[in-house]
Amino acid sequence: MSMSKYLALPILFCFHLATFQQVSAQKKSTKTTQVSYDKYIDDHTDAHLKEYLEFVAIPSVSSIPAHKADVERAAAWIVNKLKAIGMTTAQVMPTGGLPAVYSSWENAPGKPTVLVYAHYDVQPVNEAEWDNPPFIPVIKDGRIYGRGASDDKSGVLISIWAVEAMLQKDGKLPVNVKFLFEGEEEIGSPNFRSFLTNNKELLKTDFAVTADDAQHSDSVPEISLSSRGAALLEFTVKTANTDAHSGQFGGKTPNSVVVMSQIISSFYDKVGNVAVDGFYDKVLPISAEQKERIKQIPYDPAEDMKLLGTTAEVGDPAFSPLERVWFRPTLEVIGMQGGYTAPEGHSNIIPGHAMARITCRLVNNQDGKEIIDLIVKHINKNCPVGATVSYKFSPGYASAMFAPTDTKAFKYVSETVSAVYGRQPLIMGTGGTGGAMLSFKEVLGVYAYSLGFLQADEKWHASNEFFRVSSVRKGQQVYTYYLQHLAAEEAKLSKQKK
Amino acid sequence: MSMSKYLALPILFCFHLATFQQVSAQKKSTKTTQVSYDKYIDDHTDAHLKEYLEFVAIPSVSSIPAHKADVERAAAWIVNKLKAIGMTTAQVMPTGGLPAVYSSWENAPGKPTVLVYAHYDVQPVNEAEWDNPPFIPVIKDGRIYGRGASDDKSGVLISIWAVEAMLQKDGKLPVNVKFLFEGEEEIGSPNFRSFLTNNKELLKTDFAVTADDAQHSDSVPEISLSSRGAALLEFTVKTANTDAHSGQFGGKTPNSVVVMSQIISSFYDKVGNVAVDGFYDKVLPISAEQKERIKQIPYDPAEDMKLLGTTAEVGDPAFSPLERVWFRPTLEVIGMQGGYTAPEGHSNIIPGHAMARITCRLVNNQDGKEIIDLIVKHINKNCPVGATVSYKFSPGYASAMFAPTDTKAFKYVSETVSAVYGRQPLIMGTGGTGGAMLSFKEVLGVYAYSLGFLQADEKWHASNEFFRVSSVRKGQQVYTYYLQHLAAEEAKLSKQKK
Repeated sequence: MSMSKYLALPILFCFHLATFQQVSAQKKSTKTTQVSYDKYIDDHTDAHLKEYLEFVAIPSVSSIPAHKADVERAAAWIVNKLKAIGMTTAQVMPTGGLPAVYSSWENAPGKPTVLVYAHYDVQPVNEAEWDNPPFIPVIKDGRIYGRGASDDKSGVLISIWAVEAMLQKDGKLPVNVKFLFEGEEEIGSPNFRSFLTNNKELLKTDFAVTADDAQHSDSVPEISLSSRGAALLEFTVKTANTDAHSGQFGGKTPNSVVVMSQIISSFYDKVGNVAVDGFYDKVLPISAEQKERIKQIPYDPAEDMKLLGTTAEVGDPAFSPLERVWFRPTLEVIGMQGGYTAPEGHSNIIPGHAMARITCRLVNNQDGKEIIDLIVKHINKNCPVGATVSYKFSPGYASAMFAPTDTKAFKYVSETVSAVYGRQPLIMGTGGTGGAMLSFKEVLGVYAYSLGFLQADEKWHASNEFFRVSSVRKGQQVYTYYLQHLAAEEAKLSKQKK
Repeated sequence: MSMSKYLALPILFCFHLATFQQVSAQKKSTKTTQVSYDKYIDDHTDAHLKEYLEFVAIPSVSSIPAHKADVERAAAWIVNKLKAIGMTTAQVMPTGGLPAVYSSWENAPGKPTVLVYAHYDVQPVNEAEWDNPPFIPVIKDGRIYGRGASDDKSGVLISIWAVEAMLQKDGKLPVNVKFLFEGEEEIGSPNFRSFLTNNKELLKTDFAVTADDAQHSDSVPEISLSSRGAALLEFTVKTANTDAHSGQFGGKTPNSVVVMSQIISSFYDKVGNVAVDGFYDKVLPISAEQKERIKQIPYDPAEDMKLLGTTAEVGDPAFSPLERVWFRPTLEVIGMQGGYTAPEGHSNIIPGHAMARITCRLVNNQDGKEIIDLIVKHINKNCPVGATVSYKFSPGYASAMFAPTDTKAFKYVSETVSAVYGRQPLIMGTGGTGGAMLSFKEVLGVYAYSLGFLQADEKWHASNEFFRVSSVRKGQQVYTYYLQHLAAEEAKLSKQKK
């Protein structure tokens, strides 16, 4: 989950009225065709939660090379599970980096194919900040705590279990199904596009959904249509080959932490906009329609700030908070370190080097490489005499993306969540990054609409990440409904054509 | 060793000509009274180096509470050694914090008393940066590598071994000797002054030297007369209770690392002077005499920068580098951390909190507490909406200090190093802190002149700290000479009076 949600009152936002009128008209007919898998789902709750804990316990941290074997172990775990539920094929597939998992069931000739995307890799952890060890997951008060419990091992498991219920109960599926689980989402999907390109025929599909996404709450569904791109950069300021005694050299020796602080400060103007030359060149104005849409969403900053315990919202007052998060780019410092910083003790030194990592969230046609080049130019220009900067570049950058609502694919997802939740979905933008969605469109020619069950308060990427046990059941209900509904609707269309 | 040295060509600087004329006049007579302990010293090299490794292996890190037992173990080690060499008393003495070690031999009635100061606590380590584990010391290429090998376990050991040589060879000392070894020097000696005050009678002495100091090189001695004060502050910028997803919240949520960087940047003006209101209020102009003295010292910035691998000297061009280091105050950031900063991996978060530690080196009558109060006021003023700052204050602050050259105490030290090294000492200022020197003067009424054998390139406080094996022999020669010389000179004066 690199997605980002607006967190506000659970209100209904009729973004595309025509679509929703359609939903209402079809509600009755679609409901009658539905088979319930609730009994199978409920009978297997204990077994599934056991699998949940087993899967989350595998520390598949993609950004730390020492965890490579764990990532591979997680991939193998999924393959075993897919074989056990009766998928025809299930295999670990090499990419230019960490492997993907692919699986298919194609015994419904003449029926459409649906591809389900999720990722099984997770973010690293700061173990000291966790109440329970992040890779010894626990279930407490209706929540599963552990790294990846929400983002995005929930997506992998729920989609598999829904298919398990259908295959075990019926011995078949109403459509052809392909699973594609990525192992490099949390490092910016550097090999994902080329993997899709190299396996275009194998992955060919009519519809796609991503289970790496969220619902607004237990009772309010949502669909995300836009995401920002992402570009990461690590850089190190060096002022000396070694740390220096702060008395012996203090007054004549440059301090790498001070230089780093000055460089970071130079990234911003007074209202918090990015002061890097050319940064906004490719950013389009927010359209009147977009502005109007956001204005209709009642937004409660207090509610939003409560979640993190912040005391103020910041940013250019020329834009509203949602405009800034959905449609404006950012440059955030995600980590910075220099000198002796262990929790206890202190070392009276002038640090010889300091490291920072930054992430830009990009919009419209901003290009990750171009933006990183501009930032490098800015840093070099602002690096004072006595300091040098070295860079560690990412293997890839993700672009921003916007999906339409006037597609069958959107309609089926929207109708499904409307039916299962009993209300129409919120139509959202996101501040995060959905590189996979963009690649699906550009390489496979399909939009991957959001069909995941994360919730925005579940501390994705942060300490004490969790997932709601109740979403496990709901998620399977949604997926079993979705596959039946899509099959039925497509069958109708097919009949009409004939 | 919190001292700081100017590192330049080994030149002779005749700071106080009258003193040196005296030295020359007495050189002949003093030399004839000297007994050599070289044979004892050389016969015990192996045994002493074994003790060296044993003592440095004790991780007596005073700033980390978990090392309290190690600090106590180091104190006990010293007491055992002092008893073994024949000192009359040797004991661990409680202070308000970590213990001191006190020992005495007072069997020379009518003779003066000399107190030797050193400290046995050490700085913390960043173990990953060491070529050998810092607390498994090794001897390699004539150097002893290990944390504290130079600063200041060398001072403890050399002064003890010199007294050992005299006691073992002669069964007595030419003067009364007291040892005082501190266990809290590296945390700013918070309890040292009250310890001296509480034990004023016990510690009463005619002369004092500190073995927590340096010589210029193997062949050029030096005496340091001034030191800067020190004041430490740790502060944490908090913008949220938790880290936030950089996509989900980027554009509306304050970033603690950015705020911290802006606060750090605000500490300085364009030439690198401290921009905190009132910071320089109590700083006296550098006197014409001081300026003239420094001008006479040929200073090679290239040589100096080579030591650390810096590429430029920085600071206010209105002052020379030595003027800045010896007579101007500083504000250095000694450590700063925020967000996920493990060497590998990255976490796409907006850090909710960031920590920095700063140290000020103070001059003249600048008061540590006043300066820290000014800095806190500055930080609070510069802390933007959406952020709060919390502080962790030091238990104490050290003042700056200046010792005179027109004392017998200075003369004996100067004559000693002149005789043993065959040349007069450089008269230096220091940029570091010698809180003990100030307390000795103010509480015990004596100046503690420098008589230590560290050298400025020995990476005090930094990784791969080392001490020269050759200094072990030279140091003992100096101490045995000093005690004999002081005894002889004082005897002469005593005779003259009668």
